[in-house]
Amino acid sequence: MNFLDIQQVQQKFHHLTSIKDKPSLDLTRGKPHADQLSLSNSLLEIKTEDLLNNQIDLRNYGELFGLEDCRKLGSEIIGCSEDLVIAGGNSSLTLMHQYLSSLYFHGPSQVPWSNQERISILCPVPGYDRHFKLCEEFGINMIPVPLTGQGPDIDHISELVAQDASIKAIWCVPKHSNPTGETYSEDCVSELLRLSTLKKDGFKILWDNAYAVHDFQESPDLPNIFNLASKMGALDSVISFASTSKITFAGGGIGFIAMSEENLHKFSKHYASMVIGPDKINQARHTYFFKDIEAIGEHMKNHAEIVKPKFDEAFKWLSKQNHGTWTKPTGGYFISFNSNPGLAKEIITLASQAGLKLTKAGSTYPYGVDPLDCNIRIAPTACSLEEVEKAMEIFVTCLSLATLKKN
Amino acid sequence: MNFLDIQQVQQKFHHLTSIKDKPSLDLTRGKPHADQLSLSNSLLEIKTEDLLNNQIDLRNYGELFGLEDCRKLGSEIIGCSEDLVIAGGNSSLTLMHQYLSSLYFHGPSQVPWSNQERISILCPVPGYDRHFKLCEEFGINMIPVPLTGQGPDIDHISELVAQDASIKAIWCVPKHSNPTGETYSEDCVSELLRLSTLKKDGFKILWDNAYAVHDFQESPDLPNIFNLASKMGALDSVISFASTSKITFAGGGIGFIAMSEENLHKFSKHYASMVIGPDKINQARHTYFFKDIEAIGEHMKNHAEIVKPKFDEAFKWLSKQNHGTWTKPTGGYFISFNSNPGLAKEIITLASQAGLKLTKAGSTYPYGVDPLDCNIRIAPTACSLEEVEKAMEIFVTCLSLATLKKN
Repeated sequence: MNFLDIQQVQQKFHHLTSIKDKPSLDLTRGKPHADQLSLSNSLLEIKTEDLLNNQIDLRNYGELFGLEDCRKLGSEIIGCSEDLVIAGGNSSLTLMHQYLSSLYFHGPSQVPWSNQERISILCPVPGYDRHFKLCEEFGINMIPVPLTGQGPDIDHISELVAQDASIKAIWCVPKHSNPTGETYSEDCVSELLRLSTLKKDGFKILWDNAYAVHDFQESPDLPNIFNLASKMGALDSVISFASTSKITFAGGGIGFIAMSEENLHKFSKHYASMVIGPDKINQARHTYFFKDIEAIGEHMKNHAEIVKPKFDEAFKWLSKQNHGTWTKPTGGYFISFNSNPGLAKEIITLASQAGLKLTKAGSTYPYGVDPLDCNIRIAPTACSLEEVEKAMEIFVTCLSLATLKKN
Repeated sequence: MNFLDIQQVQQKFHHLTSIKDKPSLDLTRGKPHADQLSLSNSLLEIKTEDLLNNQIDLRNYGELFGLEDCRKLGSEIIGCSEDLVIAGGNSSLTLMHQYLSSLYFHGPSQVPWSNQERISILCPVPGYDRHFKLCEEFGINMIPVPLTGQGPDIDHISELVAQDASIKAIWCVPKHSNPTGETYSEDCVSELLRLSTLKKDGFKILWDNAYAVHDFQESPDLPNIFNLASKMGALDSVISFASTSKITFAGGGIGFIAMSEENLHKFSKHYASMVIGPDKINQARHTYFFKDIEAIGEHMKNHAEIVKPKFDEAFKWLSKQNHGTWTKPTGGYFISFNSNPGLAKEIITLASQAGLKLTKAGSTYPYGVDPLDCNIRIAPTACSLEEVEKAMEIFVTCLSLATLKKN
């Protein structure tokens, strides 16, 4: 198959779209496959007496910040002292909302965001659609910032921050970034922290470390932002998030938020108004299942064995042709694909005609607007390996067709 | 023991405070006792294959509104169609926050609360401290409204609503109200609904039906607000909450929110920005454990057997003396006690000297201010029966001492 020959590509597309039982394939969301979820089934099989073996009654109210052991587990994933961690419910996204709510109503300093005319957050792009939706719902202005392959463009941020006093924070997915897969370099992290200390009132680095332990092959280390911030006197700039959603069960895991003592003290009053305490029983399941970070490391190797072949399959198909560019992550859940400008919507429409669902064009950009209409997020994990193969065949065919037609 | 004889009371108090090993008793929070929690231990012992036996993979993301069966269970507790229910995480308080957030940023009508100079919520008093804290954190003005024994004073509300356009909602704990234990009458509910339809833009009836199935003896029925509202064309006024926190595990249960289709449609966009989905595994535990509302009814009888003797013990001690007045609930978790004016703080201080912790004076009022300093909330469930006995002996002694000293 020659993906540069429009006639061959058209024939192939015709074939794919005229199959009687068209497939129903989906590369949209970063969801674990059932095989990955099954790795954690023994979470559900802990004996009641072992599960409830704790100094406090896990079945009752209390422990606003979560079980001590679970906070410790979170601190090891995040890389900070356990005193700085809240182990929450099943969602780091909900913790993000609750944290933004605290800034909105009570502010990082004396002035709450609600009393300010305009609040802006920097959004490295392409980025995580749910961060953007959250900002939209809060009426927060989003300013896109390009990613470089080693984190966001610091010079660009430096200029923006100097010009625009409304900038109060930046979203970061610092390791295996969603969707580019890049990991922030030490220079990048240090510079972000430095900029936050230079700015009057600082700005918050919303550090969504969702893929902290999610390597599927040898990966660059992410610098420890708490250690760097501590040296630079910038601890109050760092608000870190993590979860076990893609370690144990998506939706049935534990979310974490971590921040400086000072920030935690401020946040806890607001947090206490909307939360009585987390599901400590599920937290105890997790600490029983994972005694320490080493146990998580071993567990993640099993995930890698399932995940890596799917990425390899996707890379194989992408390499069969020459249209567009794509990232080659070593962990996380996504490949970020860029077509020639103006083709993303077209490719996604063609793919849907052949039975392949792709994330809506633009979703990796604030307000759903990809200015070049070129970015497509590919999430191969939720499919079986066979499905990835079929899905990628469709993808490269539609990609080639859209590109060749436009040329 | 004569609780009218100051010398006898002083001797008793002296005796209680000079015991070598002073007790550590606590009547502060409406927490289930371990014996009650143990009634639900088999929730933890469902076989994995039974638990996960569902058309969807409970371990993965999805089902923003919760599992169908669990929404049904919630609808039976709340008394409405299951299409109107979201089965959420472990906390109805968090759902209340999320709902208020949606009104704040997007409004019940065209104008979000954030764009209005002043937002007021009516607060029947004495009431639930956590409702008041939530309002405080949102900068919402709270207006106290007296309770009558059958719900809030409707004439008073009618006047307030006519005078003050900033009133947008009312908090209600309509059955076994926290802390008075009263249940709203049909007249009261109908009038509340009627007032909501008269007001331009309406107002929201925040119906926290936390004790919907928590009778410990024969109790008045709460009128079904959804049925009444439907007849009166006031469905959009009703936002109902419930949870299994005091049915199964406090902190490990399921919270519910229910509202009209129109409201649900508006709310879901905001909700989707902060929640990916609930812990469906825990929802499945609950629907496996409770096949229907009848099963919950049977289960609640077992709770009643544990809870009722503690209330009876508290009533017995209160009846031994003549100071103050108190409610005699037939369900729920609280007794509301009123001393002579100006004594609540004093009684609470005396009790703490004898080893009994009581809820901070004022906590049942907005901003923590009980204008008469007389209301004390008594929560007997978390103690053992023996502890309730000791605690109430201290309580009536301190109450008598404070009253007699003042006379």
